Amino acid sequence: MKILVINCGSSSIKYQLLDADSENVLAKGLLERIGISGSKLTHKKGNEKFEFDKDISDHTQGLAMIIDALRDEKTGVLRNVAEIEAVGHRVVHGGERFASSVLLDDEVLREVEANNFLAPLHNPANIEGIIAAKKILPTVPHVGVFDTAFHQSMSEVSYLYALPYALYRKYRVRRYGFHGTSHRYVAERAARLLGKPLKELKIITAHIGNGASVTAVKFGRSVDTSMGFTPLEGLVMGTRSGDLDPAIIPFLQEQEGLSAGEVNSLLNKESGMLGLTDRQFSDMRDIEVRASEGEPICKRAHDVYEYRLAKYIGAYAAAMNGVDAIVFTAGVGENSPYLRANVVNGYLGYLGATLDVEKNNCRGCEIIITTPDSRVSVMVIPTNEELVIARDTREIVSKGLKELKLWED
Amino acid sequence: MKILVINCGSSSIKYQLLDADSENVLAKGLLERIGISGSKLTHKKGNEKFEFDKDISDHTQGLAMIIDALRDEKTGVLRNVAEIEAVGHRVVHGGERFASSVLLDDEVLREVEANNFLAPLHNPANIEGIIAAKKILPTVPHVGVFDTAFHQSMSEVSYLYALPYALYRKYRVRRYGFHGTSHRYVAERAARLLGKPLKELKIITAHIGNGASVTAVKFGRSVDTSMGFTPLEGLVMGTRSGDLDPAIIPFLQEQEGLSAGEVNSLLNKESGMLGLTDRQFSDMRDIEVRASEGEPICKRAHDVYEYRLAKYIGAYAAAMNGVDAIVFTAGVGENSPYLRANVVNGYLGYLGATLDVEKNNCRGCEIIITTPDSRVSVMVIPTNEELVIARDTREIVSKGLKELKLWED
Repeated sequence: MKILVINCGSSSIKYQLLDADSENVLAKGLLERIGISGSKLTHKKGNEKFEFDKDISDHTQGLAMIIDALRDEKTGVLRNVAEIEAVGHRVVHGGERFASSVLLDDEVLREVEANNFLAPLHNPANIEGIIAAKKILPTVPHVGVFDTAFHQSMSEVSYLYALPYALYRKYRVRRYGFHGTSHRYVAERAARLLGKPLKELKIITAHIGNGASVTAVKFGRSVDTSMGFTPLEGLVMGTRSGDLDPAIIPFLQEQEGLSAGEVNSLLNKESGMLGLTDRQFSDMRDIEVRASEGEPICKRAHDVYEYRLAKYIGAYAAAMNGVDAIVFTAGVGENSPYLRANVVNGYLGYLGATLDVEKNNCRGCEIIITTPDSRVSVMVIPTNEELVIARDTREIVSKGLKELKLWED
Repeated sequence: MKILVINCGSSSIKYQLLDADSENVLAKGLLERIGISGSKLTHKKGNEKFEFDKDISDHTQGLAMIIDALRDEKTGVLRNVAEIEAVGHRVVHGGERFASSVLLDDEVLREVEANNFLAPLHNPANIEGIIAAKKILPTVPHVGVFDTAFHQSMSEVSYLYALPYALYRKYRVRRYGFHGTSHRYVAERAARLLGKPLKELKIITAHIGNGASVTAVKFGRSVDTSMGFTPLEGLVMGTRSGDLDPAIIPFLQEQEGLSAGEVNSLLNKESGMLGLTDRQFSDMRDIEVRASEGEPICKRAHDVYEYRLAKYIGAYAAAMNGVDAIVFTAGVGENSPYLRANVVNGYLGYLGATLDVEKNNCRGCEIIITTPDSRVSVMVIPTNEELVIARDTREIVSKGLKELKLWED
């Protein structure tokens, strides 16, 4: 079963065409600058890479261009568009309504739209992509896989903020968490690697990329996660502050006369590693090189980054009253032996974690990086959100389901 | 040496007269509603309690009334006001300037005043009290003991937020921490109770009262603490939210049109346990009784309260790469076997903490509440901030110091 996996941003479409039976990626690519002059499609078929420059005005036109590339004689992998049997869509925010992956019929789409106020930067683009894809591929099933759904297993003890309860009733202000598809995937892989049932394990998964979050996965369920009402909360990220004394916001508003929108922009786009390095760097690779050479500003920023991550790992060990495995994934997590070594050696010895320096010295591999006698297993697992979306889509389609639950009760 | 210890709020003066040699409290009391009609002085001498109703217009008049009560034939303990050899003042915010207790000369007082913008609700009242006390007792030395000073040992890795660094340069926006005098006192007592040098211990101190904070005390120094730029950050408190996704603030401002001042009020006065119980309760005693009887709203609020505390303990165990002792202190910490049992049994087993149920069943005692074979010692230690202020004052006066460092380098 060939499945097209789509991730739409406001001006971009990321896609993969997978054979969901063999789980092979047949082709993939990224269309950028939709609705902006200078649109560009980068398309990959195996090791071949193709680039197309053509101005694209909207997601419908963009998807048509992608479909063309997929069935083109030279760049394509399909003889006929009908070979695509289903489309899986990444959707950022499912709110409290979606604790599962779902078949995107019109009613469901309206319910997804009802969550737009919770994710005004992401959901409208996701929905635009779904509507466009349904126009271009009207006869196949479309499935939505939500970034928030895996975390809907959290209990109210984890998801409630200590705010007036009326704000939860009125606006559903609570912790949602994001990166759920990734946390779910690597937790499952961790159980495989350990050769133990997921239902018997306490796992802490650290998705450390440009955005970053940590999740406590207890017996297969997300019981807490560091991103909250929005993806701002939690760890230090490239340009996002993560945790903060909330009183800093009214203080800055009074001192600097910032509007709500300006605060959002300050905390989401000018903070994090960019802020800590005094506007010099936001890319972790740049910072890591300099930090490891002892450059003071980058060293300080990286130390904060590591420290905040270590504290979340510690907090979630307490949240689950123990931890069997800690997983590093995503861009930084998979590719930074330096970060992993500093976190494990600097902070996790008390949990009985003992790093295997040689095993840790790898990038992008799936591997346990602690010694066999380490009381907690630390591992690196490359994430694969597209594969999870393809699997969920396949299962919903092949079993004729409307919803696919993501964890066992 | 008789020392008067003073803690001035904007409309109140709390005081204790101590014999700093024997460390006995000779008299103590609270003057309330200064500058508001219906001022009231509650004065205690041993087990005798006296109440005086008399309208008091300012702190100078208030202190004069307190001095009168202290040397009155019936209520007093002094023959002559000259028996008071020094005054120790609690000051909330010492900013980055004060990492020690200090002799309050005019220059120092100006430096304290320079921190008023950091603690606009507290410092001006503290300063008013100091000025009033210097007027009433002009010939004795006055010493300032800061709530923030003990935490000045934190490294920038702990105190920097991931905000634009320019905001630190411009406004000194950083973590300061509060309750420092209490954390310092109970950490020292914990070392005594364990019969080990403070310099060899990793201690987590939980000051859980109406305000609440947790501190990681590593080898005698505060290395991290949950309150931050203001006392809002960290744990859930009576009416304060504690930690929050910072993005909730601009969201609420856009939805509800709140000003910076209204946000401050919402987060400081309408949130916390009051918010979680849907405006029903903010006093932990009320909530605990109902929670322990299974009343759902109070149970939920108390569960959140415990859980957030447990996560901080876990985070600080990671921050120090281990923990030898965990201390509960202040109103709730000293008097709630229920809270302590739930935290230790529910979350801290993985650290090797084993509760002694009988020993835990005490209120206001100084006691180790874990079993002798427990890998981490959990204890209850009644705090005594006034005693610390008296001791620091005595040391500064008797040694003729200008500053008294609070930790060893």
